Amino acid sequence: MRYFRLLFALCGMMAFGQQMQESDAKQLQTIYNHALTSGKAYDWLDHLSNKIGGRLSGSLNAERAVEWGRQELETLGLDRVFLQKVMVPKWVRGTFEYASIITGPGMSMNVPVCALGGSIATPASGLRANVVEVKSFEELESLGEEKVKGKFVFFNRPMPANLINTFEAYSKTVNQRSQGAARAAKLGAVGVLVRSMNLRLDDFPHTGNMSYGDLPNSMRIPAAAISTNGAQLLSSMLSLNNKLNFYLKLDCKNFPDVPSFNVVGEIKGSEFPEQIIVVGGHLDSWDLGDGSHDDGAGIVQSMEVLRLFKEMNYKPKRTVRVVLYMNEENGLRGGSGYAQYAKENQENHIFALESDAGGFSPRGFVFEATGEQFEKIIQWKSYFEPYYADRFELGGSGADIGPLRDGKIVLSGLRPDSQRYFDFHHAANDTFDAINKRELELGAAAMTSLVYLVDQYGF
Amino acid sequence: MRYFRLLFALCGMMAFGQQMQESDAKQLQTIYNHALTSGKAYDWLDHLSNKIGGRLSGSLNAERAVEWGRQELETLGLDRVFLQKVMVPKWVRGTFEYASIITGPGMSMNVPVCALGGSIATPASGLRANVVEVKSFEELESLGEEKVKGKFVFFNRPMPANLINTFEAYSKTVNQRSQGAARAAKLGAVGVLVRSMNLRLDDFPHTGNMSYGDLPNSMRIPAAAISTNGAQLLSSMLSLNNKLNFYLKLDCKNFPDVPSFNVVGEIKGSEFPEQIIVVGGHLDSWDLGDGSHDDGAGIVQSMEVLRLFKEMNYKPKRTVRVVLYMNEENGLRGGSGYAQYAKENQENHIFALESDAGGFSPRGFVFEATGEQFEKIIQWKSYFEPYYADRFELGGSGADIGPLRDGKIVLSGLRPDSQRYFDFHHAANDTFDAINKRELELGAAAMTSLVYLVDQYGF
Repeated sequence: MRYFRLLFALCGMMAFGQQMQESDAKQLQTIYNHALTSGKAYDWLDHLSNKIGGRLSGSLNAERAVEWGRQELETLGLDRVFLQKVMVPKWVRGTFEYASIITGPGMSMNVPVCALGGSIATPASGLRANVVEVKSFEELESLGEEKVKGKFVFFNRPMPANLINTFEAYSKTVNQRSQGAARAAKLGAVGVLVRSMNLRLDDFPHTGNMSYGDLPNSMRIPAAAISTNGAQLLSSMLSLNNKLNFYLKLDCKNFPDVPSFNVVGEIKGSEFPEQIIVVGGHLDSWDLGDGSHDDGAGIVQSMEVLRLFKEMNYKPKRTVRVVLYMNEENGLRGGSGYAQYAKENQENHIFALESDAGGFSPRGFVFEATGEQFEKIIQWKSYFEPYYADRFELGGSGADIGPLRDGKIVLSGLRPDSQRYFDFHHAANDTFDAINKRELELGAAAMTSLVYLVDQYGF
Repeated sequence: MRYFRLLFALCGMMAFGQQMQESDAKQLQTIYNHALTSGKAYDWLDHLSNKIGGRLSGSLNAERAVEWGRQELETLGLDRVFLQKVMVPKWVRGTFEYASIITGPGMSMNVPVCALGGSIATPASGLRANVVEVKSFEELESLGEEKVKGKFVFFNRPMPANLINTFEAYSKTVNQRSQGAARAAKLGAVGVLVRSMNLRLDDFPHTGNMSYGDLPNSMRIPAAAISTNGAQLLSSMLSLNNKLNFYLKLDCKNFPDVPSFNVVGEIKGSEFPEQIIVVGGHLDSWDLGDGSHDDGAGIVQSMEVLRLFKEMNYKPKRTVRVVLYMNEENGLRGGSGYAQYAKENQENHIFALESDAGGFSPRGFVFEATGEQFEKIIQWKSYFEPYYADRFELGGSGADIGPLRDGKIVLSGLRPDSQRYFDFHHAANDTFDAINKRELELGAAAMTSLVYLVDQYGF
């Protein structure tokens, strides 16, 4: 008798499990259908990119983007939309960036450069000096002050092409950009040129954040990125004539912090409103392009999660919140500010998902989770197989949600195909025309699907 | 004693298996390293696309492509390079394609069109008639001769956006293009307009093959593709005024068949030379763009397989042959001709791999194989995981290798991400700038890796 009862219970559970699986699979199909046939991500991004444009923290455009984000979220009929104030750095590129390689009297050629974010300007008349090329900090240190003093240091270590995940290649080279100036200045360099973080050979200089660390103001030196073609050219010119001169003029400037905002919207959970699921990207971008991939895509995909729930008339059990973070690029003030807000309000965040790796065809997700949590997550993997988004891995999730990390919350990042990302990253060609509508929408659908599953089953 | 001997043997086998796995994994890494750091696929494609260009069967450019392919293969130091003659159709677009929507006297607007491959021309003065819009052959038949006679039939069924694999969406709509004219002509239509096979809304008309089937010459009518934006416009104009006129002028012409060639190169197998592995793509392309994705990418990736083996000094056990097929687009004469050649020479083909789905980031492979064969193949899947190319599925492989199908040979197709393919397919924007070097190279590396494994372990 007991045996039969057990068997009966087991069968019941299996049937229930089966049913759940089928209804979840169906729900994902509905999500994808909506995202691909009546999605709004692409139109939103068109506006953000083409009507607003590049939106560096502290700029007028950043404030326009905040207002746009708030207004658009208001139209979705969410339960709450609000701005969360954060102070952000203000750095301005200025009106003039120029560089040339000078090999002799009257013999010069221009090379495409841009100031790195946070750099000081050159003197108004520019800066002219010899160049010493290095591939690494070790090589720089081995040269010592004697061979560096009074010169430009040219950091020319390319992103390694043989790494399949281009973010890995980025992480192996980006210290040249972020710390190069501080390192070179300590050895008496007058300026720093950094090969653009780009796997392709082209003419776009790629900006990005840099820091002088604890370097006193008096020792700071200007830092510029040079396009990969420019870097190749400079390197071969140097191999012919290491006494050549480089001329650099930058006009950029740091200002005191200014106020700005995270934009937050939420649908209140019907069963567990105190459990919060966050989805987001960053609203600020660099100033050279219009930030369509970095991170306009993540912004509109995150907004789309809540919009799709509304359109499908799906009422989440848990509170689902979208956060359009301000200032990821040069300060992360939005991310830290939001985490602080959550802590101060003793909010219970169970899951945060970020999209900040470009609007490309999604391949899956990366998770920061305990073994037990990941065991649960991995059971959802097969739902994503029909959508080619079933690569589920453990690993670093995203910068903006990082400050929420507390050992309990599960953090996740959308992982699109990474091959093309650094063609556009932080450069003037990160524009709306580089976005494919379907790829963008598939990302939004994958995110919505994952949020749906977390909402259904929690952690 | 026996027990220990068995255990010993088992341990030995396991160790051997482990070793094999490690050495294979290492070999794949070497392949990828070469492809991504010293690959030639991109430079080859640059030449084929930019120095030769569109290469429709029977054109001068197609013959230039044959000669280029032969010469490039000659430089690789293969054991044999030869041309295999095939007769191909010759259709010429002519010098003039033009269409407009006419809503009243002096009121007309141009729409982008192109002749479908194989279409007859309009009369020299063009063709002017009313338009009837249909979404399907069923709808066409239900209208009957009365409502169709003397009109253009406008096939306007869009590719369904909610299908994740865009080739599936293509297969659900392409009959409008391939059979639309024959169907409409039988009901007395004077011409056919087909919505371009494109998921995006843009201004490029997409050509492609069409057939009049058994329709006598006297009943044949001109057939043109209209851009998706043009189709949207025409459809909304028709909803306002279904008496509007459409004007179409096409200048295209069919000629008798002309001779052309498959280009074949091979490395003789060191152990089993009689077992042949084929890798290939098609050398011909449509004439509007330069055929970079369709199928310049497949051509250079296939050539790269043999070049990489040479560069790595890898001597295959089995014969590895590259075939640059002629005339996939409008006749498949190269594919059928090659299969016939193989049969006549009683060659033993064990495996054929085709790349003809664009030079995008590879996701894996599709296989036509028996259950037993696929069991073997699926064991290789994990090797491709580090390269994000581990989607192994059963399904249709490729057009050019299809004629080799005999129930024994394993057929396979590279499966790149399909989202962007139909943005470019058969249109003027299928050009070299739409190619990403890394994506192209990753495809070549994946193909080389698969061919390496088949060469090692056979079927």
